[in-house]
Amino acid sequence: MASSITSPVTSLHARFDAVRAASVAFAQGLSDADATVQSMPDASPIKWHLAHTTWFFETFLLSESNAASGRSGPRYRPYDPRFAYLFNSYYEAAGPRHPRPQRGLLTRPTLDEVLAYRRHVDAAMHGLLQHPDLAPDTVALITLGLHHEEQHQELMHTDLLHLFAQNPLRPAHRPPSAALHASAPLQWIEHGGGRHSIGHPGDESRSGGHFAFDCETPAHDVLVRPFAIASRVVTNGEWRDFIEDGGYRMAGLWLSDGWATVQREGWGHPLYWELHDGEWQSMTLAGMQPVDDDAPVQHVSYFEADAFARWAGKRLPTEQEWEVAARGAGSASSPMQPTMEQRFGPVWQWTASPYVAYPGFRTASGAVGEYNGKFMCGQFVLRGGSLATPPGHARATYRNFFYPHQRWQFCGLRLAEDR
Amino acid sequence: MASSITSPVTSLHARFDAVRAASVAFAQGLSDADATVQSMPDASPIKWHLAHTTWFFETFLLSESNAASGRSGPRYRPYDPRFAYLFNSYYEAAGPRHPRPQRGLLTRPTLDEVLAYRRHVDAAMHGLLQHPDLAPDTVALITLGLHHEEQHQELMHTDLLHLFAQNPLRPAHRPPSAALHASAPLQWIEHGGGRHSIGHPGDESRSGGHFAFDCETPAHDVLVRPFAIASRVVTNGEWRDFIEDGGYRMAGLWLSDGWATVQREGWGHPLYWELHDGEWQSMTLAGMQPVDDDAPVQHVSYFEADAFARWAGKRLPTEQEWEVAARGAGSASSPMQPTMEQRFGPVWQWTASPYVAYPGFRTASGAVGEYNGKFMCGQFVLRGGSLATPPGHARATYRNFFYPHQRWQFCGLRLAEDR
Amino acid sequence: MASSITSPVTSLHARFDAVRAASVAFAQGLSDADATVQSMPDASPIKWHLAHTTWFFETFLLSESNAASGRSGPRYRPYDPRFAYLFNSYYEAAGPRHPRPQRGLLTRPTLDEVLAYRRHVDAAMHGLLQHPDLAPDTVALITLGLHHEEQHQELMHTDLLHLFAQNPLRPAHRPPSAALHASAPLQWIEHGGGRHSIGHPGDESRSGGHFAFDCETPAHDVLVRPFAIASRVVTNGEWRDFIEDGGYRMAGLWLSDGWATVQREGWGHPLYWELHDGEWQSMTLAGMQPVDDDAPVQHVSYFEADAFARWAGKRLPTEQEWEVAARGAGSASSPMQPTMEQRFGPVWQWTASPYVAYPGFRTASGAVGEYNGKFMCGQFVLRGGSLATPPGHARATYRNFFYPHQRWQFCGLRLAEDR
Amino acid sequence: MASSITSPVTSLHARFDAVRAASVAFAQGLSDADATVQSMPDASPIKWHLAHTTWFFETFLLSESNAASGRSGPRYRPYDPRFAYLFNSYYEAAGPRHPRPQRGLLTRPTLDEVLAYRRHVDAAMHGLLQHPDLAPDTVALITLGLHHEEQHQELMHTDLLHLFAQNPLRPAHRPPSAALHASAPLQWIEHGGGRHSIGHPGDESRSGGHFAFDCETPAHDVLVRPFAIASRVVTNGEWRDFIEDGGYRMAGLWLSDGWATVQREGWGHPLYWELHDGEWQSMTLAGMQPVDDDAPVQHVSYFEADAFARWAGKRLPTEQEWEVAARGAGSASSPMQPTMEQRFGPVWQWTASPYVAYPGFRTASGAVGEYNGKFMCGQFVLRGGSLATPPGHARATYRNFFYPHQRWQFCGLRLAEDR
Repeated sequence: MASSITSPVTSLHARFDAVRAASVAFAQGLSDADATVQSMPDASPIKWHLAHTTWFFETFLLSESNAASGRSGPRYRPYDPRFAYLFNSYYEAAGPRHPRPQRGLLTRPTLDEVLAYRRHVDAAMHGLLQHPDLAPDTVALITLGLHHEEQHQELMHTDLLHLFAQNPLRPAHRPPSAALHASAPLQWIEHGGGRHSIGHPGDESRSGGHFAFDCETPAHDVLVRPFAIASRVVTNGEWRDFIEDGGYRMAGLWLSDGWATVQREGWGHPLYWELHDGEWQSMTLAGMQPVDDDAPVQHVSYFEADAFARWAGKRLPTEQEWEVAARGAGSASSPMQPTMEQRFGPVWQWTASPYVAYPGFRTASGAVGEYNGKFMCGQFVLRGGSLATPPGHARATYRNFFYPHQRWQFCGLRLAEDR
Repeated sequence: MASSITSPVTSLHARFDAVRAASVAFAQGLSDADATVQSMPDASPIKWHLAHTTWFFETFLLSESNAASGRSGPRYRPYDPRFAYLFNSYYEAAGPRHPRPQRGLLTRPTLDEVLAYRRHVDAAMHGLLQHPDLAPDTVALITLGLHHEEQHQELMHTDLLHLFAQNPLRPAHRPPSAALHASAPLQWIEHGGGRHSIGHPGDESRSGGHFAFDCETPAHDVLVRPFAIASRVVTNGEWRDFIEDGGYRMAGLWLSDGWATVQREGWGHPLYWELHDGEWQSMTLAGMQPVDDDAPVQHVSYFEADAFARWAGKRLPTEQEWEVAARGAGSASSPMQPTMEQRFGPVWQWTASPYVAYPGFRTASGAVGEYNGKFMCGQFVLRGGSLATPPGHARATYRNFFYPHQRWQFCGLRLAEDR
Repeated sequence: MASSITSPVTSLHARFDAVRAASVAFAQGLSDADATVQSMPDASPIKWHLAHTTWFFETFLLSESNAASGRSGPRYRPYDPRFAYLFNSYYEAAGPRHPRPQRGLLTRPTLDEVLAYRRHVDAAMHGLLQHPDLAPDTVALITLGLHHEEQHQELMHTDLLHLFAQNPLRPAHRPPSAALHASAPLQWIEHGGGRHSIGHPGDESRSGGHFAFDCETPAHDVLVRPFAIASRVVTNGEWRDFIEDGGYRMAGLWLSDGWATVQREGWGHPLYWELHDGEWQSMTLAGMQPVDDDAPVQHVSYFEADAFARWAGKRLPTEQEWEVAARGAGSASSPMQPTMEQRFGPVWQWTASPYVAYPGFRTASGAVGEYNGKFMCGQFVLRGGSLATPPGHARATYRNFFYPHQRWQFCGLRLAEDR
Repeated sequence: MASSITSPVTSLHARFDAVRAASVAFAQGLSDADATVQSMPDASPIKWHLAHTTWFFETFLLSESNAASGRSGPRYRPYDPRFAYLFNSYYEAAGPRHPRPQRGLLTRPTLDEVLAYRRHVDAAMHGLLQHPDLAPDTVALITLGLHHEEQHQELMHTDLLHLFAQNPLRPAHRPPSAALHASAPLQWIEHGGGRHSIGHPGDESRSGGHFAFDCETPAHDVLVRPFAIASRVVTNGEWRDFIEDGGYRMAGLWLSDGWATVQREGWGHPLYWELHDGEWQSMTLAGMQPVDDDAPVQHVSYFEADAFARWAGKRLPTEQEWEVAARGAGSASSPMQPTMEQRFGPVWQWTASPYVAYPGFRTASGAVGEYNGKFMCGQFVLRGGSLATPPGHARATYRNFFYPHQRWQFCGLRLAEDR
């Protein structure tokens, strides 16, 4: 929600169209089958993402029980009453739902039918958006729906990549991107610690209108001890050193649960890496590509990131340190030099912080209150953003989160150490 | 392979085209996604069936190492060398293969590409079939390939039904069939027992040219004690009596492994039955349909068939009894009266016989030797045929086989008792 | 029940004491813990065997509802009414029971308490056995109980061995036995086939008073084709050749389910074999012992036995062939020469026959009707007997049965081939 | 380590004897089997606890490679070199070890042999403890070993209770304790927040000689917002209200992983509760006992504690809040009134804090460095202590930790809320 020159509602309408169009654009070039299959319970079919993000608007903005206040005009007719069951993700308050691991069994509705569903809901949303005088709650819910859809846009990348990686034909979704810039020499950014504010005020008037998810609120003060943080993220070349030094075989580097996972799964390199004739290659959305030593390592779990840091004699930063550093808030006696790069890409960065509520956290009322709070157990926070994160979606207060064994996201790491 | 007026090779060519076309016809009306998804490890995607049956001809008839002797003309160029890995089912001797439970992850090749693969192989097979003077081994392998494809045609029915049954939208593949004839009153066909020949001679000259799978051979004599066998199969109405009498809750009726399965799976009715407002309905390829009391029960496991028979005070026939009765071979002193109906449809009929080798059984040499023999453990023989069995595919010596817990085939039962 | 010089009842009383004493003797030298722990769901604790065999007499002979007819004297007081729940094995008709995989959690009652329970029931049984005129049904049930207890005596050997084999200390239960006689050269016993009677008449007057389990009945005629059977069982030395020839890595030798098991479990040798400094040793009830090349191989599954036979170019005999040969019933034109050795030991011998009902089989009425019939699914018949089989327990009609993957019994094999 | 009147070493010697004797005392009255069986992978046999705590001293204090510096006298002879494999718990650096889920298969060594092992090691430790001039590192390691043993003393209670609870005979280990004092009315202790120090300095000179585990260090400042904390823990009566109000069926109260656990496990009450004729009873070390409404609830998981707090309109305290409150560190403007009771018993209290490293945390060098750090993933901190915690073992800085689904410890909760 970048500019605010135009009226907020006009800008919201334009943003609605842009975000909705981006989801459809991603599906270009996919077959009905590509959009239907689910390659593991953690992933969802592309078609399901397209439908679920639509269900969000239908359920929370358009349907009778949740109809946005102040809305006039004809009653909304649900596109298909059975979709409420099929495309609810995890909202217990929104009723029963199709089991997650069985999302890939839904060959019907077809991709074309899902696109038609999108058009139906978009048309109704257009009617709503033209209302001269939308209630603030309605604007907030629409805004939430758009950020929600942007999150699913990133998941469409990771889930499609996982699906294609299961296929021995190694299909490509698009041509290779231009190479990422070669990594700069790593420098240590010193931070003097102290008391700092992190998090998001959660109040449009105080935040300059910038959106945040509930879990980023409230803003609050934290105490940080002096630390240093790396100027860039860890590279594939550095990760190869870890592999070659036997890092995946040294029990002492690993958390107990991590070591058990390494042994059970036989991990010896990041997800999607394969050794062909002595050369590392990696599956990408552009098919198999050589591993570039200067590019950031990705598709590593928290367990691996934590072990790598221990191997390097460093540690992962806490999310508080990461945010303080990302805001450039060096203390007066020790301003940050040099600058922290790669803040919002190209990889999400594991932090040492479990995903829990900020002090004073309150969930929203109603079903959308299930958005974040109920996942605050067993997961770790990632900060930053990736190449698959929609532009403008990331911010310094953003808290992404995954389980410590998960690797299919675009996850890497940045090192830190005590001072 | 009904008529033999034309020359065998001409007839083989015509039969090749007819069988191959029938597979493609089944896929009409299916989306790419319908043809791709695998709903459980026991089932395979339609696309996979279409490709695997083609791989059979490509591998065993066309490829260099197995090229049918006597073949002239240009060398066969494999359509895609990677397909050998993707579409081998279980032939260890034919090299490594894609894991069965992951068949549904292959969104590529697409359905259209698989149909192109079929056309490519069919064209090469046409070249081979036009050879004036095919070696008998080649004719035998082609014939095997066609019967193999017919088996997969039945599996396409059962696997698609299973997939559609997982979808809350309950899609239909085709309009309802005309109702099956109402069940006739059950009569008991008496058989005096004695020594009888069963099985197939396995030698075209002695069998009048009728094909059989290796497991039906050799023909051999068996001793049968006097018995009676039901004139028809068990109906839905009779099965409902079993349900209403508490049959699924009476431990004493069940085999030990069967009772454990009932409890673990919570079975209380045949697969696909659902109770809606006090009425039983069942998922079919024509979508949800009322359960017809007069139609044969289907989608029951061996465990259920065996328990039902015990509840009825009867037993399942052995496969020897079934075959002797199906051949109408009443003993001289007790010719069969009345006639045994529903021999080759509409449902496969569980027998009490584990699937093992006939005395003197020999597997074929080469990879096709894995066709049947290696499955002779833990499965039970079914006799007869179903509505999904291609016309002419079934015969009195045919031995179908499945594990005792499996229910997704068109399986029912016929009762027998000692005399 | 060997001799019949004394009156049947006197002899029954003596036999009761002998069988019951043998169970207790086995437990000598075991700690309370040795007798309590369950090393896998297929095995049971020694204490449980001691209690369950006692429960059998208490439940089927002594308790009110089953009190043997014709019994006078005081009412039987159950030792502990809770034992009915704890020590029922699988008799659904005898009420609910403690789950099998949790038998090893019962640290109470202690071994001493179980021995006291045995004495209590034995005393009551003595009262019953002194009755001058026991009804034939009562005698039959007591006889069944004693054969049942003998079966558990063999299981006590196999289950204790399995438990001790899990302990890195490799405890021994007793000193090594004298070495088995070295294997004689293998000879092929020719059999001309034909019609033969197998099985047990199931009627004391016709069987000369010899006991049989229900599954051995009725006696019936079978047709057997000409065959040859090995004069002795397969040896460890022969099995080593199979290993060294790569038998465990040749997919083509194995049943499909067997090959999946080999791969999943990583089998490469019989259960309990370990390679120490190039020499095979095996865990036994006398602790770790060198593998003797001339002794019979044991602790192999059906899958392994079947693959070995295929590797050797032979096959397993059917149970009909085994019994016909064991009875020495060479046909007139081809009397058996030489003699079949090792009929009733030292190892059980896998046959090619699934365990199913003989034609005309009827289960007993009441709970003991669950004794055998409900296991007739998925298991294979073994014939013969082992060193752990109580003397006099085995016979030519005896049908032992286990699942094809099970290896912890004293199981080996004897080869056969077609003629 | 209460008094410090006597010399530290004398007191250490006395404390060594006292702690070691307490472990043996717990085993009084247990059978060899009671001490051997493992009722689930999370629990260990009593015998294993007795041996493992002994292995700790043998390995880290007595064995050649770790021999405490400054020790004179004869070389230590390991009691049994195989015990290093059997009784290592999880120290990767101390070599391979017996798999945890198979600890219960070790019927040998017997309980008596384990007690002899203890005496052997105790004698050698006495030799060491008599040394006039123990190095500080040696004293620190011995002290660690004693606190380690005290932790296992608590586990012996919880593991034995879990074992006995699996036995339908519901054995008792000891007579019922006197009833806990009836719960006082709940009061809210107000705390004004601010900056406070928590954690342990980790340096004997600064801590007055009080021991702490590494994870309690370093002491550091935290910011706490104003809050209120309950004066006492939650009672069984309050928990019953939660049950009766349907708390176990309200999805909205639960964390996502918690709700999945409730559904999968069928939870509807604390572990060990059973409803008999409308009255709740609970399994205890004194056998089945009525549930006392006024006693603290125990055997609830983090998931349940968190859901209960949400149902009550409150939340769990963070570990920082708990510790600040437990130290009585009311801020100047708002001294704590009334007093926080039940700080160190009778139940451990779940906090909202995941178990992670304190800022600046360093693991010890060597194998004992694996003591705590490698478990810092996926677990939650509990504060306080239980009736099974050895007297003097608990302290305000103590951090206990378990996974959020675990219930077999003596765990309850105390509520908090924002101010």
